[in-house]
Amino acid sequence: MSTQELMAELARRIPAERLLQRPAQLAPYESDALTAFRSRPLAVVLAETQEDVIQTVRLCHRYSVPFVARGSGTSLSGGSLPVPDGILIALNKLNRILRIDIDTRVAVVEPGVVNLDVSRAVAAQGLYYAPDPSSQLICTIGGNVAFNSGGAHCLKYGMTANHVLGIKAVLPDGEVVQLGGNSLESVGPDLTGFFVGSEGLFGIALEITLRLLPKPERYRTVLAAYSSLAAAGNAVAQVVASGLLPGAMEIMDALAIEAAEAAVHAGYPRDAAALLIVELEGEEIQVEAEFAHLLQVIESSGPDEVRVAVDDADRARIWKGRKSAFSAVGRLSPDYIVQDGVVPRSRLGEALATIERLSRKHELRVANVFHAGDGNLHPLILYDGRVAGELERAEVLAGEIIAMCIELGGSITGEHGVGMEKRQHMPAMFAETDLEVMATLRRGLDPAELANRGKMFPGSEAPALHSRGPHPLEQQGIISRE
Amino acid sequence: MSTQELMAELARRIPAERLLQRPAQLAPYESDALTAFRSRPLAVVLAETQEDVIQTVRLCHRYSVPFVARGSGTSLSGGSLPVPDGILIALNKLNRILRIDIDTRVAVVEPGVVNLDVSRAVAAQGLYYAPDPSSQLICTIGGNVAFNSGGAHCLKYGMTANHVLGIKAVLPDGEVVQLGGNSLESVGPDLTGFFVGSEGLFGIALEITLRLLPKPERYRTVLAAYSSLAAAGNAVAQVVASGLLPGAMEIMDALAIEAAEAAVHAGYPRDAAALLIVELEGEEIQVEAEFAHLLQVIESSGPDEVRVAVDDADRARIWKGRKSAFSAVGRLSPDYIVQDGVVPRSRLGEALATIERLSRKHELRVANVFHAGDGNLHPLILYDGRVAGELERAEVLAGEIIAMCIELGGSITGEHGVGMEKRQHMPAMFAETDLEVMATLRRGLDPAELANRGKMFPGSEAPALHSRGPHPLEQQGIISRE
Repeated sequence: MSTQELMAELARRIPAERLLQRPAQLAPYESDALTAFRSRPLAVVLAETQEDVIQTVRLCHRYSVPFVARGSGTSLSGGSLPVPDGILIALNKLNRILRIDIDTRVAVVEPGVVNLDVSRAVAAQGLYYAPDPSSQLICTIGGNVAFNSGGAHCLKYGMTANHVLGIKAVLPDGEVVQLGGNSLESVGPDLTGFFVGSEGLFGIALEITLRLLPKPERYRTVLAAYSSLAAAGNAVAQVVASGLLPGAMEIMDALAIEAAEAAVHAGYPRDAAALLIVELEGEEIQVEAEFAHLLQVIESSGPDEVRVAVDDADRARIWKGRKSAFSAVGRLSPDYIVQDGVVPRSRLGEALATIERLSRKHELRVANVFHAGDGNLHPLILYDGRVAGELERAEVLAGEIIAMCIELGGSITGEHGVGMEKRQHMPAMFAETDLEVMATLRRGLDPAELANRGKMFPGSEAPALHSRGPHPLEQQGIISRE
Repeated sequence: MSTQELMAELARRIPAERLLQRPAQLAPYESDALTAFRSRPLAVVLAETQEDVIQTVRLCHRYSVPFVARGSGTSLSGGSLPVPDGILIALNKLNRILRIDIDTRVAVVEPGVVNLDVSRAVAAQGLYYAPDPSSQLICTIGGNVAFNSGGAHCLKYGMTANHVLGIKAVLPDGEVVQLGGNSLESVGPDLTGFFVGSEGLFGIALEITLRLLPKPERYRTVLAAYSSLAAAGNAVAQVVASGLLPGAMEIMDALAIEAAEAAVHAGYPRDAAALLIVELEGEEIQVEAEFAHLLQVIESSGPDEVRVAVDDADRARIWKGRKSAFSAVGRLSPDYIVQDGVVPRSRLGEALATIERLSRKHELRVANVFHAGDGNLHPLILYDGRVAGELERAEVLAGEIIAMCIELGGSITGEHGVGMEKRQHMPAMFAETDLEVMATLRRGLDPAELANRGKMFPGSEAPALHSRGPHPLEQQGIISRE
């Protein structure tokens, strides 16, 4: 049998302490931050070197056994969920920063490097890595690449794809390739961009060349409270129309404010219906000029209250509230679903009104926390799994929100990816011929569908158990659902 | 015979006046702005509707006849050169702007729309389309997409790929697909980015959704003269290090200055060894703040002279000199080769010194005009085709410059593409497995290699005559070689 032969071969190459096979050893790898699905891999390879990864992929290819790469397992779409009876390749130990070039502002890192560790490694040189998912304390660059991760500060400088210059990867057939290079000016089709966001279907990144940016010399963080979500949304439109391009523009609604306040005491105005956080960043002289302009725009947008962060500690507190909002909602409800969708910025008001209507219809509370600048919504649907029917209603509501995003001309995911969770929405978003192009390209690289089988494409074979509930890592405060 | 059947079928669908077959009708389509190659197509279809394009591609696919799409034929890499005995699909009449949405700042255009016409169409609404190839008066969006075109002002906002949100395309097998959408946040692999820069190998774009930007409220254009190229290069490094991100940073050397002055009287200081043009753009308050900072940085970089554009006419004159520099070089030499390569910005000085050495070694003058901000060199190699051996020496020199770009960790093309001209350099830039990935993906979409056969890949079948010399359009001043 091919899996037995594969395991025998793997055992010859990977020391027993790094080749996990016992149920108790496999249990921590059975799910990721999307807790709706659970499945058990045949084995877990704890890779220590790029060669470990390459050899494992080659063996999987030879014996036609599916494999999935995994970093910290913070995927909110089930993207790093194991394929049943496949090999899970854990990359956390592949966490070396291989090269830092201050002059050309690039860092070459292995996939298991934690997002924030890149910025830490170059902080003394005045540089940083811009994309900042809320889970940046724990999520890895490999996962960021697979899902083209975003974050609150991706408004100005773009998502992960805008910051990856090159990728050395092992393809599903075990070939090792170098995509892109040191420059954003690529030759021919943009294969780096093609790989970024491909959710592990095109292979595993072994080395990633990241673009570094000069650390902003100055931040100016403005907090404005409004008496309605619509007013906050209009303020965002006015900031955009003014020509300003802030580093971040985030909105939280009353329920999200309440949760964040209860959890981390961010000092938000507690009676506000909506809170807008706008942050300018850059060179001091420029930020100060923009700041004066921004204050005028905000003042004219009819806020109830405007605050400006007085120092770094104040700024950190404001962001801590925002970044912990997802997990903080856990204090208001035993269970919740994090949704991720995009609407055109111009239709934000309409989208929020629809979500409110759906919330009333299904009699479930929805907290809204979102990247307002780019129309990326993160509705949190609160429910109690112990009450019969609530989970089902919550799932219907989550699906209706995604249907609305498509109808308004948006997208089924802003940054969490399709993974397991959104597969069924792909046919609503893409025409059959569009899906067929993706499938054709994928078959070209991986005819047997070994790499991350069952993800992204609708109807893919991928049985998995279903059991919603908070993730253990989340309960420990290690991950937040964003 | 299949080509006869194809022609008969085409004749049934395309009126005779739009189906060119006589030698005199075909002659204008035998080459593009890279005049080194010439080849005759079987026929030219002057497409008027998207359906014309789709039906022609489907017929080519059915009869296995290769096809190439062409806009204004301004490709400098031979990318729009016809495939011998294939069908050339001319897209200039497919030049409708289908939709403009001011709120979401997008324009949906057909591929034959001229680059500058997009900006003209939205100028009254205060918007513009950012990528600005020097040929923007005549080159089309379809060609910009195929070659991921850049321009002097792509330093701040990126190349064409950064401004294309979605593409409706006909694939080589005649299927029509929609890639991407209205948003930069794409789902799954970035197929839009994959298509942009693919040089016509993945099919023909029918509708392109472009991102529009607010027109800069204010420009500040600074001209600094230096006594050496190295000093100008150092000034660029100092501007970058200061944290400023200008809209454009261009350098011209003495020979290029001389040519531009002779041609358009731009008012450049004529005794300078190098000229640096730096332009700030954006909101008035921000630009003025940056401008004060920029002047400090420039003053401390040891220039011989610094001038600031006093009004719009002055600014236009400065840019006219820069943008006409390529064709102006024609005044200094009967023939020249335009090279296009990239070096890491930190190695610009080294690259320029090498070019000077190569120029002396081969006893040929080289004029340098380049996008200094992103290390994109455009050496112009001057030669006289009537002198025996000069063309050959010029070609060797051009090849050595590209070899240097690769050695310094750069790229064989910044914005002109691979096309016919750079195919032989692909194996020096990419490993065999890397080229194989591209070929695999291409075969997935086009197993018979019908779309733009012979371009980009080394060793592809594509016989063509060889005859360098100025292009007729260039002699008429309609195109410039950039």
